[in-house]
Amino acid sequence: MGIYLDNAATSYPKPNQVAKSIYEFMINNGTSSGRGSYKMAMKSDFLVYETRKLIGELFNFKNPKNVIFTSNITESINLALRGILKEHDHVVTSSLEHNSVWRCLKTLEKEINIKITKVRADEYGYTNPIDVKNSIKENTKLIVFTHASNVLGTIQPIKEIGEIAKENNILFLVDTAQTAGVLDINIKENNIDLLAFTGHKSLFGPMGTGGLIVNCDYDINPLKAGGTGGDSKYEYQPNYYPNKLETGTLNVSGIVGLREAIKFINSENIEKIHKKEKELTSYALKKLKEVKNIKIYGPQNENDIVGVISFNIDNINAEEVAYNLDMRYNIMVRSGLHCSPNAHELIGTKDIGAVRIGIGYFNEFDDIDKLVYALNDIQNS
Amino acid sequence: MGIYLDNAATSYPKPNQVAKSIYEFMINNGTSSGRGSYKMAMKSDFLVYETRKLIGELFNFKNPKNVIFTSNITESINLALRGILKEHDHVVTSSLEHNSVWRCLKTLEKEINIKITKVRADEYGYTNPIDVKNSIKENTKLIVFTHASNVLGTIQPIKEIGEIAKENNILFLVDTAQTAGVLDINIKENNIDLLAFTGHKSLFGPMGTGGLIVNCDYDINPLKAGGTGGDSKYEYQPNYYPNKLETGTLNVSGIVGLREAIKFINSENIEKIHKKEKELTSYALKKLKEVKNIKIYGPQNENDIVGVISFNIDNINAEEVAYNLDMRYNIMVRSGLHCSPNAHELIGTKDIGAVRIGIGYFNEFDDIDKLVYALNDIQNS
Repeated sequence: MGIYLDNAATSYPKPNQVAKSIYEFMINNGTSSGRGSYKMAMKSDFLVYETRKLIGELFNFKNPKNVIFTSNITESINLALRGILKEHDHVVTSSLEHNSVWRCLKTLEKEINIKITKVRADEYGYTNPIDVKNSIKENTKLIVFTHASNVLGTIQPIKEIGEIAKENNILFLVDTAQTAGVLDINIKENNIDLLAFTGHKSLFGPMGTGGLIVNCDYDINPLKAGGTGGDSKYEYQPNYYPNKLETGTLNVSGIVGLREAIKFINSENIEKIHKKEKELTSYALKKLKEVKNIKIYGPQNENDIVGVISFNIDNINAEEVAYNLDMRYNIMVRSGLHCSPNAHELIGTKDIGAVRIGIGYFNEFDDIDKLVYALNDIQNS
Repeated sequence: MGIYLDNAATSYPKPNQVAKSIYEFMINNGTSSGRGSYKMAMKSDFLVYETRKLIGELFNFKNPKNVIFTSNITESINLALRGILKEHDHVVTSSLEHNSVWRCLKTLEKEINIKITKVRADEYGYTNPIDVKNSIKENTKLIVFTHASNVLGTIQPIKEIGEIAKENNILFLVDTAQTAGVLDINIKENNIDLLAFTGHKSLFGPMGTGGLIVNCDYDINPLKAGGTGGDSKYEYQPNYYPNKLETGTLNVSGIVGLREAIKFINSENIEKIHKKEKELTSYALKKLKEVKNIKIYGPQNENDIVGVISFNIDNINAEEVAYNLDMRYNIMVRSGLHCSPNAHELIGTKDIGAVRIGIGYFNEFDDIDKLVYALNDIQNS
């Protein structure tokens, strides 16, 4: 299908067993979870439970019941922010947030008058943890940070921020959209209270899956109310996990695919995955620097970023670059603002956008060579 | 896999092309929708758009952009109820609602003091539209009704209620969980302002799909905020459909499966599907009546119900009946309250529950014969 370099949006391809397991589940079982008590439904229950367990373990989290499934990470983040923040609460966030965090915070600012402090990173996306510490006020309820920018790739100092949060008794929510499955994330060591994840990016699962790991006792208000398959006489959401925050029929077939995806990650192991992505990223940085008239954003150091690189070519707008890459060379990248106007503001591209490549585990060095060739060739014609 | 009679929970099997299309999309495309502008992403956009169009057309609704995708019908209902109801608003609802409606209303009653009137149906689940009319107050904002009870099967008089809603300038929300794909539902003729649907029941789509059709101008407050793939500089949800109410990565592979499911329904045609389900239901009613010591709930008339029949056997509790059907005869049914305590209250089974069969298009008369044999046999042993 050409060269896919949009893994930061969704990963492609997936390990073969992901689609295969979904197909086989739909054909051979297909039952809902948490509802019936017949054998096939119990099998569904088991598959869902095991996926919670596998996901938890990936982050060194041992309580599968607190692994809440959602339809995507945007829902996970909304669930956490809306479920926790109350009138006049103060929240500290990065200057690199995706709109999944930023729009939600701005909406809550308008609706319930929360106060937001955006901690400014430098133009490479580096955040100084001291600035986070200095942003804390008496009414700071929550710190929410992306683990790595989806525009610059810059990995954020979540360990240091986690410590600051803990010292100040403030909840810490981490958006792992760009890191789960690639970086080794230890929920305990990083003092993460709430970890939002998406299934369909570096976790290699299908779209329609995501979740929130609740590693704290805070009484989170549910985003939705409805059937949970139990306690049916009780007129509100039951007060235990996962049912408190999960309602309606789960995407069981999607979860089954995610289960295979996590098993794939475990069998490869995260270190190997990270190593390959880092090598590809290092190679891409080196090669892209040789492209004529290119301006690369972010740290340009493979140790400080995930496999996300944004750039522009002088005198050709980002959309045109992306369009040409696709139409003439069958190379898929993303142009524009990537739903992250904050990050683009930092690098001065809020009005023009940028071209972004998202490198995945299944890319090869040759993909980068072809991209670089194409970027030069576009400028020759 | 045995005899599946839990189609009211989720349909099984699905038409073959549903799982197949999901598999093929994941293997051959796999891209997100509404994000990239490369050819493969445009193909995803097209598939999603066409699914909106097909779903709309199924309900005689011609505006695909107002077909909002959600992860399940519970989310659709929460989106509508939370997005519309404001402090002290009055809402009229049936006495047959699933917890997806009921728990959401009770939560809003607690949170923002809405007022709820439950219109009492008779013990067969028949609602008199006059009672709906008489429930309307000056501050009635919304009428929300299930189209058919998921416990008794009883079809509700939505045409009459729609007229009442229209005459009184009140919004009308219909929960089609048990009817979409089986009954011909005309959104215009029934004056439905908001139609909530689920993908994975009679629409034959995968779990993880559902939606809300917005057939009114009311300014619905979004349930979530986040990336929409466009207008990224704008700090709130954009004010047009579907982006206003849809955020984060869509379940594209699931939607692709739903598209094939709707195409299957169109190729069979709804009348044929309904006719077969009615014949099976009629046969099941006739045969079940011959079972020893059985008490069947609901109208016992195939013209007034969808393929849902609940019953109890004297002196054997519902769980035990269901357990035996599964373990000894490989027949899958659902016991308990079916997330609908209201309906069970009507028939006096709120404390004991009932056995429910959910008949689907792919069931056969023979499935009913085997069920009836087993129900008698259980009592002999």
